[in-house]
Amino acid sequence: MSTFKVHILGCYAAAPGSFKNPTAQVLEMRNHLFLIDCGEGTQVALRRNKIKFSRIKHIFISHLHGDHFFGLMGVITTFSLLKRSAPLTIYGPKGIKEICLLQLKLSQGFTSYPLHFREIGAKTPTVILDDDKVTVTTIPLNHRIYANGFHFQEKPGERKLDINTCLNLEIDKAYYKKLKQGGDARLEDGTIIKNEEVTFPPEPAKSYAYCSDTAYKPEIATQITSVTAIYHESTFLESHAKLCKPTGHSTAAQAASIAKLAGAQHLILGHYSTRYRDLEMFEKEAAPIFKNVHLADDGKTFEF
Amino acid sequence: MSTFKVHILGCYAAAPGSFKNPTAQVLEMRNHLFLIDCGEGTQVALRRNKIKFSRIKHIFISHLHGDHFFGLMGVITTFSLLKRSAPLTIYGPKGIKEICLLQLKLSQGFTSYPLHFREIGAKTPTVILDDDKVTVTTIPLNHRIYANGFHFQEKPGERKLDINTCLNLEIDKAYYKKLKQGGDARLEDGTIIKNEEVTFPPEPAKSYAYCSDTAYKPEIATQITSVTAIYHESTFLESHAKLCKPTGHSTAAQAASIAKLAGAQHLILGHYSTRYRDLEMFEKEAAPIFKNVHLADDGKTFEF
Repeated sequence: MSTFKVHILGCYAAAPGSFKNPTAQVLEMRNHLFLIDCGEGTQVALRRNKIKFSRIKHIFISHLHGDHFFGLMGVITTFSLLKRSAPLTIYGPKGIKEICLLQLKLSQGFTSYPLHFREIGAKTPTVILDDDKVTVTTIPLNHRIYANGFHFQEKPGERKLDINTCLNLEIDKAYYKKLKQGGDARLEDGTIIKNEEVTFPPEPAKSYAYCSDTAYKPEIATQITSVTAIYHESTFLESHAKLCKPTGHSTAAQAASIAKLAGAQHLILGHYSTRYRDLEMFEKEAAPIFKNVHLADDGKTFEF
Repeated sequence: MSTFKVHILGCYAAAPGSFKNPTAQVLEMRNHLFLIDCGEGTQVALRRNKIKFSRIKHIFISHLHGDHFFGLMGVITTFSLLKRSAPLTIYGPKGIKEICLLQLKLSQGFTSYPLHFREIGAKTPTVILDDDKVTVTTIPLNHRIYANGFHFQEKPGERKLDINTCLNLEIDKAYYKKLKQGGDARLEDGTIIKNEEVTFPPEPAKSYAYCSDTAYKPEIATQITSVTAIYHESTFLESHAKLCKPTGHSTAAQAASIAKLAGAQHLILGHYSTRYRDLEMFEKEAAPIFKNVHLADDGKTFEF
């Protein structure tokens, strides 16, 4: 059974504390390692969580508030110090390229690897990565500045051969690839073997939605219907709900509502304001609305 | 006896490790708290070292390599989150203002306090700060890119009153300020009391030189003659001396030579390459040349 993993490197809002990292997480999906947001200290958090730097080929930045990208330049230059050669692509709001290139220029530095930027400016969902394994689409958010979440959708996998039946029927191996892709086979005597007779359905494709930072926005739910797991920010508890509007953030209950509306299987809460001493209340306020709620915390890994 | 303190927040070269911070230190001198360089994670290191953020009014950046300034934007924005009102001045190479303002602009952010920049481009020693307590002068270094160290010199203090003698001679208190500043006093009967009869000399003014990053450059020593303490980078041990030239760095022995040439009282070594497992060898290679050698390490405080 194929699963994906979410490694939480940091899940606290605003200024980092001694043991509270700003936002960064790694999504391990279909052999990809996607770095999502990159707050200050991300390169150290990657080390501590034993994430292999070289396997990260795509970095997604939701928006240009410091707690989501001040660690990016450190990652870019450390990759060079490690003599990386594989290309790296940064996806983020317009301006991110200028920020990075200006600093590289002034340090008279260059990267040891091809560094690409895919700047995002659209206000509607946009496919920004599409390969044979995964599609990544932006999720327009509602924050104080231009911000996007990211919807990671696995491509449906290949059908699986019922290898014993294939051997019993003496199907030529040349047909195996075609069968996996849904086609039929033909025996030497001309008999057609229907695909369903010798294959099992592919594993169901899973999906992950990352939504931070954002005020309550029901359109998010519509876009990510039936998502396997959603990470939705919950900066505040109900007691500070009045801060949501001016700051462009959500409560735990609002995050739960989005998960419920979307028909999600799981909800991860995070991006907690550092004013709260413990996280239990976030779960308490979300659970009556959405049952499968999980609390992100630095160093935690979720598997779905 | 007045002393100054150097708090080492980070003293390792290049990419930060889990427990090895890039360069940053705080100089506590005559009631000033100067932040010198600001590698990634400096704001967290400030917290861990219990340095009061609000007392930092001046930040000095030696050069624009990431391990010396990638923590600067985090400090600038966190100061705002803390609703700071006191002005902050950043001293650093040309370009640093553009880097900071671009990121503030793109985050549609502003600081809650006046933020000033003093960009440096001169290739000769230049006074960049001069108040009634301290003078700060650049120390041109020899690195791969434009870099300056900083020479912090205390102003000579006031003479100290010999209060018992003053009282015995019934000197009018109106003369006390004048006496502290080196003037004489006059008794009611017209007798002149010479300054030396009723005052003690001021405490000797001390000084601190921060020199990182740089290749061996004897001119540094000439500029900082008789410095109380010098922090001089020692990226490499003798076994890697051949790397000094291409990288623009020094060995521990070269750092010791500079301290000796300068007639310094103390030498602090730092900016160690992370290739070395322990630091003892740095002391071993420096001590035969300069006796009073100290090893910087993250979290250490020196008092002189």
